[in-house]
Amino acid sequence: MTELREKSCEVCHIGAPMISGTEARKLLAQLPAWDIVDDEGVEKLRRIVIVRDFEKAMKLANEIGELAEEEDHHPLLIVEWGKLTIFWWTHKIKGLHKNDFIMAAKTDFFVED
Amino acid sequence: MTELREKSCEVCHIGAPMISGTEARKLLAQLPAWDIVDDEGVEKLRRIVIVRDFEKAMKLANEIGELAEEEDHHPLLIVEWGKLTIFWWTHKIKGLHKNDFIMAAKTDFFVED
Repeated sequence: MTELREKSCEVCHIGAPMISGTEARKLLAQLPAWDIVDDEGVEKLRRIVIVRDFEKAMKLANEIGELAEEEDHHPLLIVEWGKLTIFWWTHKIKGLHKNDFIMAAKTDFFVED
Repeated sequence: MTELREKSCEVCHIGAPMISGTEARKLLAQLPAWDIVDDEGVEKLRRIVIVRDFEKAMKLANEIGELAEEEDHHPLLIVEWGKLTIFWWTHKIKGLHKNDFIMAAKTDFFVED
């Protein structure tokens, strides 16, 4: 976990290789709060965080948003009362890159357990 | 438009009546940027706003979030790079209440056209 979240995103470009199934499983084992979901053929990392209210969901979204700006890699966030859903994937390759696992690990740092 | 956005949300409770189809159409006519979408049997007001980047989407989400706290009525917001999708509906009645149209009109106030 520590190892993954201490990495930084590499520059990613169209045509960069998607992560292999084996590597994805290995990295996912370090991220117990995350699932890989299939969104119309595009694999995405997803974490659902239950929080106290809307304000808490918004606060966590902002923290993740700041991290996204720092790394120049951006998630999709669903903010609602008592819940924040976070998706990481790489638009340019329409799937999962190692960067996404790094961002998921960094995201966990902001979530109060 | 002005009239709707100047109203405040009424207190809503379980069992409060959903808005009628006729009234919904009349109010929607005042909200040209909004659609009514059916989400697994629950009608919701939706607006998709295209913005410059992730930061702009987050900024707009925060403005709408503050409005939601003031009115104690909360939306679902999908924040992503270059786009914010806003949904208003009333959880307690699993559908649309006049409050949702009021919130949609107030939301428009924050969107730069």
